[in-house]
Amino acid sequence: MKPLGPIPPHFPAQGADLMIAGRPARAWAQEHGTPLFVYDAAVVRSRVAELRAALPPTVRLHYAVKANPFGPLLALLAGLVDGFDIASAGELALLAAQGIDPARAGFAGPGKRDAEISAAIAAGVTLHCESAREVERALALGAEAGQRPRLAIRVNPDFDLRGSGMKMGGGARPFGVDAENVPALARRIVAAGADWRGFHIFAGSQALDATAVIATQAATLDLALRLAQEAGVPLPALNLGGGFGIPYFPGDRPLDLPAVGAALAQELERHAAQLRDTRLAVELGRYLVGEAGVYLARVIERKESRGEVFLVTDGGLHHQLAASGNFGTVVRRNYPLALATRMDAPADEVASVVGCLCTPLDRLADRAALPVAAEGDVVAVFCAGAYGATASPAAFLGHGPATEILAESAAHTVG
Amino acid sequence: MKPLGPIPPHFPAQGADLMIAGRPARAWAQEHGTPLFVYDAAVVRSRVAELRAALPPTVRLHYAVKANPFGPLLALLAGLVDGFDIASAGELALLAAQGIDPARAGFAGPGKRDAEISAAIAAGVTLHCESAREVERALALGAEAGQRPRLAIRVNPDFDLRGSGMKMGGGARPFGVDAENVPALARRIVAAGADWRGFHIFAGSQALDATAVIATQAATLDLALRLAQEAGVPLPALNLGGGFGIPYFPGDRPLDLPAVGAALAQELERHAAQLRDTRLAVELGRYLVGEAGVYLARVIERKESRGEVFLVTDGGLHHQLAASGNFGTVVRRNYPLALATRMDAPADEVASVVGCLCTPLDRLADRAALPVAAEGDVVAVFCAGAYGATASPAAFLGHGPATEILAESAAHTVG
Repeated sequence: MKPLGPIPPHFPAQGADLMIAGRPARAWAQEHGTPLFVYDAAVVRSRVAELRAALPPTVRLHYAVKANPFGPLLALLAGLVDGFDIASAGELALLAAQGIDPARAGFAGPGKRDAEISAAIAAGVTLHCESAREVERALALGAEAGQRPRLAIRVNPDFDLRGSGMKMGGGARPFGVDAENVPALARRIVAAGADWRGFHIFAGSQALDATAVIATQAATLDLALRLAQEAGVPLPALNLGGGFGIPYFPGDRPLDLPAVGAALAQELERHAAQLRDTRLAVELGRYLVGEAGVYLARVIERKESRGEVFLVTDGGLHHQLAASGNFGTVVRRNYPLALATRMDAPADEVASVVGCLCTPLDRLADRAALPVAAEGDVVAVFCAGAYGATASPAAFLGHGPATEILAESAAHTVG
Repeated sequence: MKPLGPIPPHFPAQGADLMIAGRPARAWAQEHGTPLFVYDAAVVRSRVAELRAALPPTVRLHYAVKANPFGPLLALLAGLVDGFDIASAGELALLAAQGIDPARAGFAGPGKRDAEISAAIAAGVTLHCESAREVERALALGAEAGQRPRLAIRVNPDFDLRGSGMKMGGGARPFGVDAENVPALARRIVAAGADWRGFHIFAGSQALDATAVIATQAATLDLALRLAQEAGVPLPALNLGGGFGIPYFPGDRPLDLPAVGAALAQELERHAAQLRDTRLAVELGRYLVGEAGVYLARVIERKESRGEVFLVTDGGLHHQLAASGNFGTVVRRNYPLALATRMDAPADEVASVVGCLCTPLDRLADRAALPVAAEGDVVAVFCAGAYGATASPAAFLGHGPATEILAESAAHTVG
């Protein structure tokens, strides 16, 4: 038997039913069909409120679109956060489709095409330049179009985010400009007359250890101030990166957000004079929307094979690659998962929950203790709000994408 | 430095140029843009010819659509193979879109929805039933529609394919009916008056060791004949599975296909009397199309960071998840890859080839010895014909899908 990850606290049980946005999961599944992603708007709002309460008031919140680019979710976030971070012209188009002002966006990414750079400059997007070469391309494309590009430097720091699920900085990286080369490049941008937008420093992601996040934020501030000083340029803006993790696996504990906020406030106080004219931001994707999403799939068959029980569902890794343990994972562990239609039943048997794909990779839970399930039961996979639908191979085996909805507790739901 | 996998022999160099279907890779990239999948029709044809020459003439060739469902490739294969194996109603629709008779198809998959079963029955598809429960559902849905379903049993054997990249049989599995329960179920199908289509036994995939494939095929034949005899039913058809691997990684050697064919001929000879009325098939996906595909991406930037060289391309894991080492891989190894525009240059430096996605997972080659590349060079990732485009998260980070074309050496190309 293998333990399941911890169910986020936003989804209570009512009798047999898992409740999502005040309604039974079975009702969402009935109305919209399965497989289905339900994103609970209230969970996003409360997460933003927690951040606003914990972080110093001058720190702006940015949403990293890559975590979940679902249109109605972007529209919701447009009213909640202060900016957006995009990683392609495709994501820029998604913002535009929701009527979101692209001037609120920053664009980072190591392989920007000329057309993407031009589109971003035309739209007033801040380019987070990943290299000196990219700065020159942006300056040239801006000049060609008669537009003044807004340029920031993505810095590859000389440290990483300790304990992070994914390291984005430190050592040799395809991302950002090595810190030691940043001052000269900052001067070049300012001298070229571009709209200088400061630094973007992203050291890692998915960290649950507040001490590590605090140390990284302090180091990021120090580095940014040192680089600006060395360059002799102002620091109009600083994207501190993100890295705030959410609990996925057994034993994971939530990030101590108040501790992170208090420490950051202290750091800002310490550097108050130098930061007077600096617009600070944290860039969060998973932390804003990950826990808000629940993936619902229906049990098509309860199958026994040589003493093991398999719950075969109509969902699978084509929507939940990370939950299947096949996306950048070394050791497969179980995500939080529940039988959303048997919440009041004891976990009387050990079963594996598999998807409908004809591959042994397609497993949503491996030998988990669950209530005894039957055909028609609904399985809920939690933490499905980030890096789910679009981070999975939706076309694999021809089952097609899942439906996605943004659920409002009160009345309206956008699909 | 890490070695690269072996380049398939179908793609020669001409001066600086990698040739695909008689034309430089740079010309394909120029005409169709990058990132681009080029599938060489001649490579598919020659692979089919090799199979026809090696395998006994009574063994039919099936194509597993899941490996690559690109329409023009299906149309090509329709004239080359004897049948298709599908894994969803979506794949059935893809066959129909190419005018391929669905009666040529078998449908396996652990989580078939009622609507999928009904659609398959209506179209004359053979259902490879994965459980007794699925047999009952198919019988009921057939009766409801007044149609006689064509039913085979997918058998979960009591052995697996030794040395296979992915085990599909043996032990407890979500796939197929445990061998020990098959005879009773076969009798049930025959007694119910369905069109009995025999067995489908798939023990594993991606095996390069001919001895293992030979042993598995012999065991599969023995098992099928034993099960039919125990059941007291005829064996009108037997899908022997596939499992023929292709070389991806350093040290991989091609499967000894003539040895497999000769051994299978001996086995068929040994069982000739019992197999007189049995239609035999092997089901191949990767082996038919994997080596025919080349993925082309363009170098957007040559970047140096702290002593390491990164070639940042406009491709990435959103099209080539497996090549990035993030799809069911434990230890990341390099796929075969080349600088398609520098084939005559010595491998003078060590570089990592990365994609345009803003994630450290997006690496197509890790510290490989390559010619010194510049912006505009074209990178070729080989073995991209199977489990590439549709087995990757195309929507991730908003760059969108790659173009795919079927390349004919002579004149016409279908995109």
